Amino acid sequence: MKENKPIGVFDSGIGGLTVVKELRRILKNENILYLGDTARLPYGTKSEKVIMRYAMEDTEFLLSRDVKLIIVACHTASSVALPKLQEIFQVPIVGVVRPGAKTAAKLTKNKKIGVIGTPLTIKAGAYERELKRLIPDAEIIAKPTPMFVPIVEEGWIDHPVTDMVISEYLTPLKEEGIDTLLLGCTHYPLLEEKIGNFMGKGISLVNPSFETALEVKNLLERLNLRRKEGEGSIKIYLTDLSPNFSTIGSAFLGEPLNNVMKTTLRGWE
Amino acid sequence: MKENKPIGVFDSGIGGLTVVKELRRILKNENILYLGDTARLPYGTKSEKVIMRYAMEDTEFLLSRDVKLIIVACHTASSVALPKLQEIFQVPIVGVVRPGAKTAAKLTKNKKIGVIGTPLTIKAGAYERELKRLIPDAEIIAKPTPMFVPIVEEGWIDHPVTDMVISEYLTPLKEEGIDTLLLGCTHYPLLEEKIGNFMGKGISLVNPSFETALEVKNLLERLNLRRKEGEGSIKIYLTDLSPNFSTIGSAFLGEPLNNVMKTTLRGWE
Repeated sequence: MKENKPIGVFDSGIGGLTVVKELRRILKNENILYLGDTARLPYGTKSEKVIMRYAMEDTEFLLSRDVKLIIVACHTASSVALPKLQEIFQVPIVGVVRPGAKTAAKLTKNKKIGVIGTPLTIKAGAYERELKRLIPDAEIIAKPTPMFVPIVEEGWIDHPVTDMVISEYLTPLKEEGIDTLLLGCTHYPLLEEKIGNFMGKGISLVNPSFETALEVKNLLERLNLRRKEGEGSIKIYLTDLSPNFSTIGSAFLGEPLNNVMKTTLRGWE
Repeated sequence: MKENKPIGVFDSGIGGLTVVKELRRILKNENILYLGDTARLPYGTKSEKVIMRYAMEDTEFLLSRDVKLIIVACHTASSVALPKLQEIFQVPIVGVVRPGAKTAAKLTKNKKIGVIGTPLTIKAGAYERELKRLIPDAEIIAKPTPMFVPIVEEGWIDHPVTDMVISEYLTPLKEEGIDTLLLGCTHYPLLEEKIGNFMGKGISLVNPSFETALEVKNLLERLNLRRKEGEGSIKIYLTDLSPNFSTIGSAFLGEPLNNVMKTTLRGWE
């Protein structure tokens, strides 16, 4: 039965497990097949061309495992490659940008929205375009915040360095008077509390992971592809088993990491 | 003539240009062919297996361009892959670990030596082994300092965050009373002044780039491969032209970056 096929999710690394965490919460019966391209991460500091190619290879890998739907959990790949992937491949493909932008557009009152992400996500401007489509007179303040990923990977969630970096990056956004801040990278939800404290009350933080999971749920129902019984499983494929993936991975996923396998992708085998 | 062939240098990115800078200074007549694997950087947070593979592909690329000698400018690849590369390939191959360790061993008086580098460089323990070989009763304090690379790439050389991160990482080494600190990553020379100020007088910092260039000079002379006339040139091949490579690259190289070309490697073409 078609609905028993897994949902495929890919990301440059294990940060996309923040999306899987939300999927598990609202779609308990689904089997999930996750691909993290840990051998070539990060995507956010490289060029559009190379990310396009990596995203194609990731998608082909998931399709070779017969998934019913694909989620591009990486904000950089969603920003750069999604339209092309949707054009080329037949399977339904969902990114994180549109759901995140939709929520931000719903929440803002003063129409001043901040977007933070990797240099390539910000440069690609997909969040900005999507927000402008929803609120043509919105004022978007987009800022690359490249140190947040290494901080999360170093485990410095509660560290004075983190407060200082947050203040360095976000003071201009605070001063601009934004009332909504879009967390445009899978790693940032782990800094949500710190960022929230810095920005202060009255500023909504948007974590697109949750909205993406909701969109997937609606889409599966519309397509009659939702699995309604049985316990859902997770299988995780990584292109490199780097030393610290399991500690950070379980922080992203919110549960222990089992069923992790190493794989290689067509392009560099 | 054999001595007119270029010297090949490879690194995970553009940090290895700190080695090229020293080469240019003491071997003015040499032609240099540099390969930076910017599409797959960094190497220092991945696994030994995948770095071994990348180093093989990098070496094969340089050999296909007919180099007379290869320098593994990446400390992680030098730590993990050098013996294997020397075993497999016929060309002379020089890493940065042995020259760096030799200098540190010469400089230390109290035989307490600190080593900092990426997580994989530290885990591989090549600096430790090499230092122990030179001074069997040396006390080595090795520490991974993963935030230094993103800090340099963000351009935060003179930034309060950098002072804080330096203090966080290096206070334990200072307290241990080391008198020599080995900078085990191509990016770290850009933080040399800051690190030196923090560690204080009487502590020698070792930048292996310079010693590596010296070793290459001696080796070329021994092998009768040194080019003695004509102006040396640089050709730079990168596997990805990421947006900010030229700004950072010229900071590493100490001169403007010309002659940069994009290339692909056998493994992932």
